[in-house]
Amino acid sequence: MGRDGIREIGIGMLGYAFMGKAHANAFRKISYLTWPPPLEPRLVAIAGRDEEAVAEAADRYGFARWTTDWRELVRDPEIQLFDNLGPNALHAEPTIAAAEAGRHVVCEKPLGRDAAESHEIWSRVAATGVKHMCAFNYRFVPAVRLARELIEGGELGELRHFRGRYLQDWGDTDADLWRFDRAAAGSGALGDLAAHVVDLARYLVGEIAAVSGFLRTFVPGREVDDAVEATAEFESGAVGTLEATRLALGRRNAFQWEINGTKGSLYFDMERLNELQVFRADGDRARGFKTVLVSEADHPFWEHWWPPGHIVGWGDTFVHELHHFLAAIAADADVGPHGATFEDGYRAAEVCDAIMRSGAEGRREVIEYRTLSEAVAAN
Amino acid sequence: MGRDGIREIGIGMLGYAFMGKAHANAFRKISYLTWPPPLEPRLVAIAGRDEEAVAEAADRYGFARWTTDWRELVRDPEIQLFDNLGPNALHAEPTIAAAEAGRHVVCEKPLGRDAAESHEIWSRVAATGVKHMCAFNYRFVPAVRLARELIEGGELGELRHFRGRYLQDWGDTDADLWRFDRAAAGSGALGDLAAHVVDLARYLVGEIAAVSGFLRTFVPGREVDDAVEATAEFESGAVGTLEATRLALGRRNAFQWEINGTKGSLYFDMERLNELQVFRADGDRARGFKTVLVSEADHPFWEHWWPPGHIVGWGDTFVHELHHFLAAIAADADVGPHGATFEDGYRAAEVCDAIMRSGAEGRREVIEYRTLSEAVAAN
Amino acid sequence: MGRDGIREIGIGMLGYAFMGKAHANAFRKISYLTWPPPLEPRLVAIAGRDEEAVAEAADRYGFARWTTDWRELVRDPEIQLFDNLGPNALHAEPTIAAAEAGRHVVCEKPLGRDAAESHEIWSRVAATGVKHMCAFNYRFVPAVRLARELIEGGELGELRHFRGRYLQDWGDTDADLWRFDRAAAGSGALGDLAAHVVDLARYLVGEIAAVSGFLRTFVPGREVDDAVEATAEFESGAVGTLEATRLALGRRNAFQWEINGTKGSLYFDMERLNELQVFRADGDRARGFKTVLVSEADHPFWEHWWPPGHIVGWGDTFVHELHHFLAAIAADADVGPHGATFEDGYRAAEVCDAIMRSGAEGRREVIEYRTLSEAVAAN
Amino acid sequence: MGRDGIREIGIGMLGYAFMGKAHANAFRKISYLTWPPPLEPRLVAIAGRDEEAVAEAADRYGFARWTTDWRELVRDPEIQLFDNLGPNALHAEPTIAAAEAGRHVVCEKPLGRDAAESHEIWSRVAATGVKHMCAFNYRFVPAVRLARELIEGGELGELRHFRGRYLQDWGDTDADLWRFDRAAAGSGALGDLAAHVVDLARYLVGEIAAVSGFLRTFVPGREVDDAVEATAEFESGAVGTLEATRLALGRRNAFQWEINGTKGSLYFDMERLNELQVFRADGDRARGFKTVLVSEADHPFWEHWWPPGHIVGWGDTFVHELHHFLAAIAADADVGPHGATFEDGYRAAEVCDAIMRSGAEGRREVIEYRTLSEAVAAN
Repeated sequence: MGRDGIREIGIGMLGYAFMGKAHANAFRKISYLTWPPPLEPRLVAIAGRDEEAVAEAADRYGFARWTTDWRELVRDPEIQLFDNLGPNALHAEPTIAAAEAGRHVVCEKPLGRDAAESHEIWSRVAATGVKHMCAFNYRFVPAVRLARELIEGGELGELRHFRGRYLQDWGDTDADLWRFDRAAAGSGALGDLAAHVVDLARYLVGEIAAVSGFLRTFVPGREVDDAVEATAEFESGAVGTLEATRLALGRRNAFQWEINGTKGSLYFDMERLNELQVFRADGDRARGFKTVLVSEADHPFWEHWWPPGHIVGWGDTFVHELHHFLAAIAADADVGPHGATFEDGYRAAEVCDAIMRSGAEGRREVIEYRTLSEAVAAN
Repeated sequence: MGRDGIREIGIGMLGYAFMGKAHANAFRKISYLTWPPPLEPRLVAIAGRDEEAVAEAADRYGFARWTTDWRELVRDPEIQLFDNLGPNALHAEPTIAAAEAGRHVVCEKPLGRDAAESHEIWSRVAATGVKHMCAFNYRFVPAVRLARELIEGGELGELRHFRGRYLQDWGDTDADLWRFDRAAAGSGALGDLAAHVVDLARYLVGEIAAVSGFLRTFVPGREVDDAVEATAEFESGAVGTLEATRLALGRRNAFQWEINGTKGSLYFDMERLNELQVFRADGDRARGFKTVLVSEADHPFWEHWWPPGHIVGWGDTFVHELHHFLAAIAADADVGPHGATFEDGYRAAEVCDAIMRSGAEGRREVIEYRTLSEAVAAN
Repeated sequence: MGRDGIREIGIGMLGYAFMGKAHANAFRKISYLTWPPPLEPRLVAIAGRDEEAVAEAADRYGFARWTTDWRELVRDPEIQLFDNLGPNALHAEPTIAAAEAGRHVVCEKPLGRDAAESHEIWSRVAATGVKHMCAFNYRFVPAVRLARELIEGGELGELRHFRGRYLQDWGDTDADLWRFDRAAAGSGALGDLAAHVVDLARYLVGEIAAVSGFLRTFVPGREVDDAVEATAEFESGAVGTLEATRLALGRRNAFQWEINGTKGSLYFDMERLNELQVFRADGDRARGFKTVLVSEADHPFWEHWWPPGHIVGWGDTFVHELHHFLAAIAADADVGPHGATFEDGYRAAEVCDAIMRSGAEGRREVIEYRTLSEAVAAN
Repeated sequence: MGRDGIREIGIGMLGYAFMGKAHANAFRKISYLTWPPPLEPRLVAIAGRDEEAVAEAADRYGFARWTTDWRELVRDPEIQLFDNLGPNALHAEPTIAAAEAGRHVVCEKPLGRDAAESHEIWSRVAATGVKHMCAFNYRFVPAVRLARELIEGGELGELRHFRGRYLQDWGDTDADLWRFDRAAAGSGALGDLAAHVVDLARYLVGEIAAVSGFLRTFVPGREVDDAVEATAEFESGAVGTLEATRLALGRRNAFQWEINGTKGSLYFDMERLNELQVFRADGDRARGFKTVLVSEADHPFWEHWWPPGHIVGWGDTFVHELHHFLAAIAADADVGPHGATFEDGYRAAEVCDAIMRSGAEGRREVIEYRTLSEAVAAN
């Protein structure tokens, strides 16, 4: 076996900051940590607004060229995969353009700034037939995938409760971030953090039928929400809460969730992302939650890594995620159900919009999900 | 100093089961663990429906006499304190009767089966001038009191979030419990567990202005709710969630709450009731939540106990609570703000009722609290 | 059933401070928390050096009389159980005198100030035929008993490792305590803390064959050791470490131990005394330590307490311990293997002495345990 | 700034398995995660015994060529850094040969199979003047470096206790590993795990003056030790324990240590390598261990990574370690004190040997460290 035998795929990336670093790192690691890689990522070009910064990023991460005009990426014949890591306002147009130019597309979450824009992206891209993935990377945490497998295996029985909250604490900063700009971001904690909660709720428990809740802005002068509070009802009958805030001092990246079923329970905290707490009502006299260090040979994604107990980091989830997308491209296979498609991105946005409307109108919102056919028909 | 110098108070107790054991134990321990006791509790009489059981309870806990008719307690001239531990349906009449007969009254939570009944109890009892306490014993957990002191001392700054959930897991039992009977209990997890969440939310964060949420019954044939999910808005502007369930497998008595303020955060779990997690944004490079083992000489209630690190149990919270009530009687002092008065019992019931209405009507409920004057005027 | 049907036992207690409070509390609670109690403890008399303090203690805890001369207790015909809680130097003479006067005896740990004194106490008391118990109360923590049951049930397989350390942090105090006085205490952390480690090592893993280690005094002017470090070899072949210190800042009462066997492992920390960590190599894909909240209906001692999850405190271990001793007296049953007899007290002292000798001589000490027959023969 | 401006360094690697993957990954990541890299690692050649495997490794990790004869690496003019990841028996000869050929050398721990061999490697290599590092990668865990900085900053005061144990649980496997072969490995848990404990003890607390303890082999037919138990005395006066085992079921990679000083304490567990527990005796009423998530902008190594709370993995420690070594080469700076030099590798081996002798002879071993001058003189 040799490098020669591995097909290449040209990558074009829009964005070079936090997420740019995370994705570039992942594409580079896929080449040797996952072996053999489904496709060999070739870093063709990177685009960004600041000329000096994007040039340095290209040099640093090993892109062959750079540009300040993302349209060049869309036109570049060496690029087969367009990875959109730009601010939310820059998700729709480049993503759609890339797909319509025949590129497979990855787009950071939230897909659009609201459900309408998200649906537009999904429907336009779906119509092209390319592969698409909305980068909800937390589906690719080994403990989250293990949770999904335990649930699918029936080990929790019927699910009754989901209790999800994404707590960070940097919201009091007065830095001038695009994430605080309504036009650029669409929303604050809602699209940034609550969207992750919604996505994992859907991935692990199922579709959300109704929500009730509200957004709250605490910081004076802030255009977007700092916090989101909601109750949720799932189609399956399960119920729970969805929360997100940038103002929970001491919680740096605490995406915590708990699921209770008729046979067992699970608990997870992203600050200890290698651990899954597992309870089973198996009649054992020594009953209690197990702290499972998700790092065994037969645990998800662990074929890429180290001996048991040698934990992975947050950045490694992108290796799993982008490997999954490359594998789907290589095999012409479905991105879902484990990868979040643009439909998943759209559906998360519908839930987020419903929470916002619920707060504005002071009432429970039953969610109506649009299908693709309307959209495609509408095109 | 001697026993002779300590005034006695005659105790009459209604109920002999779980709570009867907890309260009898506390009254007995107050005599020597708190020293000198504010009043020496004399166990005069105990009432209960089952003749054999109540007779054994009297024998076991050291009550001088027993009866199957609680009215005898109300008439008994040796009783100055009436402690009502009966099922919820038996809260109103005996408590009011005892107060109107001039007895100080303790009543288990929830005060009444709904806000109307709770208000009735409060207003009728308040009119008599006796001391009254609704037995929200978790205010008397050392870690909870320490939390209150830290908040009052300004160590958390302005509060932004309260995240409270009371999780138990015995709800699938098919035992024939009064707690599953709507007439006897009024509600399920709502009055049993969520009322505790509401009370501590009020005690630690302040008055609740509005709620949005619902009740859910999962177990077929169950008359009352198994679970409660709600979002809350506090008068101060803080926001959060209130949850309770009897169906969270693996959580035996997990009353967990978190508070985030502009200067710090607190976290607590009743299953580790001796610990308070404390975060302060103090600029320390080594930032993080402290696990405070609340057992120091200068910690709340610790003057009654052991050297540091020698933890107390759940049953000991009742020693603190009833000691507080006896001290209020002895000094003719206010039961509040640390003891929950019947007004607190009523206000918790208003919040619980509002959650129920919110679920039924699918909308946010702004809570209007009735004052005493209306009620007393209505009498 | 009635109080009348329960036999009484007269208690005489030497000591009224920390341990006096703990034991008096336990005797009082046994009367109603354990039901029916095996014997009804009657608090006859208490002895102590300080007249005012002992008088107050008698009044507080309900002893009928008090004295500053422990010999009065030995002579008192109403006393059938002599509970020696005095400083270590006062263990031998009163305990032996009480036993020789026909009283059942409880003696605080360490039994004597060294192995010779401990053997003397054991042999003299054993010769009288009374019941005797060395108050190693940590055997009566529910989680510790559950650990023993799991081990006896074979759930850990053959034991390989014991890792025990008792960490406290008050050793820098300059208070004038008898525990710092060599004549009164015999040793420092060794007899106070390491003795507990040795006792649980023996109770859970088995007899210790050899040790290697040393004592260390850090605090200038301190007569006794602040810390003990040792390795241990068990007769079974298991190996491990035994540690104790009064100088581990932040550890208030952290008696932590871990046991590893061929089938599983256990971990415990006294600061979370209601929890036992249990690992079993059962092939489960979700492998990990379970956090068992030891509070289930079928857990040790739990018949005396509350519903699951409503935890007990440190003081409650004495209820279990003294209940056990009263039951042994009532039934004329063995105090061992769950209660520590004076033989256990002696054997712990042999191990402690061996660690001291090992440190002094810089070599591994094989422990030779003396039997009773030599001793009794020597009498 | 550009790639062109960054000097390259040619890497030759011996070994392609577990450690080969870890080091190759690190060298590749240094190029862009640390920015600008001190030197750009160029993967020149890799050597290994199995032709097919080493060829695949070269292909996978991107080495320009491969060989089954490590001597080719030593001769290769394009290689400036020789990274020896072979089994212990293959540490001495290739490492010395590479250094004597003028290559900077990294060698996996333990440096040699015993102190004599380690001293030989150290002295021969030191005589050449090249940079050398013994790959004790755990010095490069952010939490470990933070611990060192806190200690150096005086935040713990004078150190009194070190309690270190490295617990794994794969020792019952019957796989035919070189680690079980005495000739190849030298020792078992001693050199594999206890050496790490010794190194961090030295790095954090200081030089070890004496040890007492033993090795133990539990598994029938096993040539090397499964477990090590020892007490330790440090030159500073601190005392503690050193333990290692491959037979602690449920502990996958639990390198746990605690340090107690006169002002504070630290606790760490490699299974939660992003967390450091910090206690300070600062008079705060809310006293307790802080759980510090070591991921802040001002925390060690964090300039290479993500926003706070986005944790790193075990594999990332090698990025820090090899970056440190490249920086030392680039700046002609000392590898120590943060990097472990071959002197550190030798000194750890002296401690390990002393534990072995202590067990064999049943006595405390005072450690005499040889200096370089004797050795170089001896050459």
